[in-house]
Amino acid sequence: MYEFDKLSLNIPATTKPRVVIIGGGFGGINLVKKLSGKDFQVVMFDKQNYHGFWPLLYQVATAGLEPEAIAEPLRKMFGDEYEDFHFRLARVTGIDPVAKTVTTLVGTTTYDYLVIATGTKTNFFGNKEIEKYSFPLKQIPDAIRLRSHLLQSFEQANMITDPEVRQSLLNFVIVGGGPTGVELAGALAEMRKHVLPSDYPGLDFSKMNIYMIEGMDRVLPPMAPESSQKTHKYLDKKGVIIRLNTLVDSYDGEVATLKSGEIIHTHTLIWAAGVAGALVDGLPPESVERGRILVNEFNQVKGFPEVFAIGDIALMKTDEYPKGHPGVAQPAIQQGKLLADNLKHLLRNEPLEPFKYHDKGSLAIIGRNQAVADLPGNVHLSGFFAWVTWLFVHIMYLIGFRNKLVVLSNWMYKFFTYESGTRIIIRPVIRKIGKAAREQEQKASEGKEKL
Amino acid sequence: MYEFDKLSLNIPATTKPRVVIIGGGFGGINLVKKLSGKDFQVVMFDKQNYHGFWPLLYQVATAGLEPEAIAEPLRKMFGDEYEDFHFRLARVTGIDPVAKTVTTLVGTTTYDYLVIATGTKTNFFGNKEIEKYSFPLKQIPDAIRLRSHLLQSFEQANMITDPEVRQSLLNFVIVGGGPTGVELAGALAEMRKHVLPSDYPGLDFSKMNIYMIEGMDRVLPPMAPESSQKTHKYLDKKGVIIRLNTLVDSYDGEVATLKSGEIIHTHTLIWAAGVAGALVDGLPPESVERGRILVNEFNQVKGFPEVFAIGDIALMKTDEYPKGHPGVAQPAIQQGKLLADNLKHLLRNEPLEPFKYHDKGSLAIIGRNQAVADLPGNVHLSGFFAWVTWLFVHIMYLIGFRNKLVVLSNWMYKFFTYESGTRIIIRPVIRKIGKAAREQEQKASEGKEKL
Repeated sequence: MYEFDKLSLNIPATTKPRVVIIGGGFGGINLVKKLSGKDFQVVMFDKQNYHGFWPLLYQVATAGLEPEAIAEPLRKMFGDEYEDFHFRLARVTGIDPVAKTVTTLVGTTTYDYLVIATGTKTNFFGNKEIEKYSFPLKQIPDAIRLRSHLLQSFEQANMITDPEVRQSLLNFVIVGGGPTGVELAGALAEMRKHVLPSDYPGLDFSKMNIYMIEGMDRVLPPMAPESSQKTHKYLDKKGVIIRLNTLVDSYDGEVATLKSGEIIHTHTLIWAAGVAGALVDGLPPESVERGRILVNEFNQVKGFPEVFAIGDIALMKTDEYPKGHPGVAQPAIQQGKLLADNLKHLLRNEPLEPFKYHDKGSLAIIGRNQAVADLPGNVHLSGFFAWVTWLFVHIMYLIGFRNKLVVLSNWMYKFFTYESGTRIIIRPVIRKIGKAAREQEQKASEGKEKL
Repeated sequence: MYEFDKLSLNIPATTKPRVVIIGGGFGGINLVKKLSGKDFQVVMFDKQNYHGFWPLLYQVATAGLEPEAIAEPLRKMFGDEYEDFHFRLARVTGIDPVAKTVTTLVGTTTYDYLVIATGTKTNFFGNKEIEKYSFPLKQIPDAIRLRSHLLQSFEQANMITDPEVRQSLLNFVIVGGGPTGVELAGALAEMRKHVLPSDYPGLDFSKMNIYMIEGMDRVLPPMAPESSQKTHKYLDKKGVIIRLNTLVDSYDGEVATLKSGEIIHTHTLIWAAGVAGALVDGLPPESVERGRILVNEFNQVKGFPEVFAIGDIALMKTDEYPKGHPGVAQPAIQQGKLLADNLKHLLRNEPLEPFKYHDKGSLAIIGRNQAVADLPGNVHLSGFFAWVTWLFVHIMYLIGFRNKLVVLSNWMYKFFTYESGTRIIIRPVIRKIGKAAREQEQKASEGKEKL
């Protein structure tokens, strides 16, 4: 019986300084792309073998795109033309910044420079019950699970005798009114109008309810008030039921109770309400604040000049961003690129360049032909032009020529036919409905050791 | 807690004769397409919500296509323009041909005409050990599991200290030299040459072995000897190790023992060696022969003139085909279409038309620019022209305009770049290697009740 003890990281010995990067997200891949193999040996760990383009993950969940369209294998991205680059599919269990080692389930390696680029994970704010019964949307398996669940809910609503249970299967609750929540709500509203009635002629879709629960006083709180207003108005028109200034207090798999006292019977509670840093063990507590790693303007972790954190996991407080940079792709991309330069500066004993965030604006899609955009210079767009901008930006930033083509052709197809083609339930086991099923599923996925 | 007792099939009452079809494969969908909703109420059961184009399943397993490209949701295929058509995602547990009922996990319905179009399932010939440790390739989840396993095998071979275990991870054994086995072997050989060396620069791919084990005295036994020869020669040139006239006696997850005495250490044994009819409970034993349902020339099951079996599950013995028709798509398609006509004849008390199989030939792809084709009139093609024929036929028969586009553009991309883009490991849990892992996985998937 072969187990992990037979595996070893198998990283070649080198005379060059070794840069170990944890995480193949936006920060990690942009760093690798600019780091020359002549100067460094570069090692990347990730628990997945692909880079995911998370801004489009909601499309996988709502059957608009297949998972492969938004994921690029890291080995394909950094093929053999990247000299002395070593990817290892291995989960990091901890670091030792004094001994300068990184430990994974497969083995331990030393580093000269360590870059923590682990991003975020779903934050349930300690609510174990919600964690158990809700659907997070953070990774590709989450999206596949949610898509299968949504489609099965309609199949089951179509076969139910009890009208109360049917209503409960047709109530969809999205917790969180940020970009993910808004994009999901918009996509579900479009499915309700254009796709589902012809798929399920026996179901009355006027009874399908889409709730969006947001704790702040407006949707899209990170965006400009104008954009929030436009979005609110549009979603309202599309029949999304928006609840502001309230939170979900409890959810037992069947009944969601809001802080406001409202009770919603639902089989589907989608948790898009928050993220927390995906911390690695081993840093002293003074390096961590609210789940993020405190760094200086060079992304250096306090007390360990050879340890860096970039992207969402890094908390760099500046005058302009006293709470750190927004948790979107751009700061990670820019920090990854700058760090490549700074690592070369370190090698040559040159002074480091401080990070300066170039805000390129933020965008959210809210429906067919509808998006909102906050651009630099206090410019706010909405409607068709913002939508085209959104498409253009997202296709441009998609990794890999093939994926750009796939996503573009999917969108064109969808635009002209009002159809999407990926409404297949690909998980092998079809669930029963209700709490018991969630518990069973949870149990099956527990206790499996992950590489 | 909501369970199956809350569900019911919820099929509307009707004055028209009700046709119940079990299975949305080639036979089932072609029957539905030709059955007018004016004459019949049509009910289809399937345990999946999609029709799969199985001739391309091996491409999903070898990261050439995403699952969505070969699957079309049945509800999309039979949207609301099909009057009085009712799809139900429900697993059939049995039929009662005397009481004229079909029972599913969700509930029971009556029928006037019943069509069994359940196709086949993997046949392990009673070998429980092989069933436990091998990888079948029959359904989309099988292909995803196999793809993930193949990719993880390379990841792990790249991280192994023990050279014997590494070799074992790089030995791939395909059991069965039929079209699936040949197409898999060809695809793996192409990956070894064009894709894997740049993905895994640290691995020595001259050590990767692809074995193909066939019990008969030639590969592709259902095809013409000329085609078998050409295929054998081509695979041989590509470095596939072919063993004829032998079987796999045992496989414990690590060691495969052949009837010939040969022993192969391998972590990957792909089972493409046989299928058996996916029978439903309830037919008397005299209606069943070698796992298939005996039917007359009208596809009627003996003793039950209102029960039909079509496609792979049906065994129609004719002078030309004394052992039944070949287990490929064409007989199923043609029987489905004919049965639509015959059901209308029955309704009008007209005589039924007997089935006559129009053999359109058979095709197998064996590599880039390489295929073999047996065409009617004893014409045998091979090489580039057969390959183009294969592409054309497969794209033509693919269900759905979107899928045709997706597959065509994938192929064009692959043809020009030698690349495929879907090498992502999308299953949530990354396995350990070896027997223990297979056992753990098996256990996790057991005991989950399926709808």
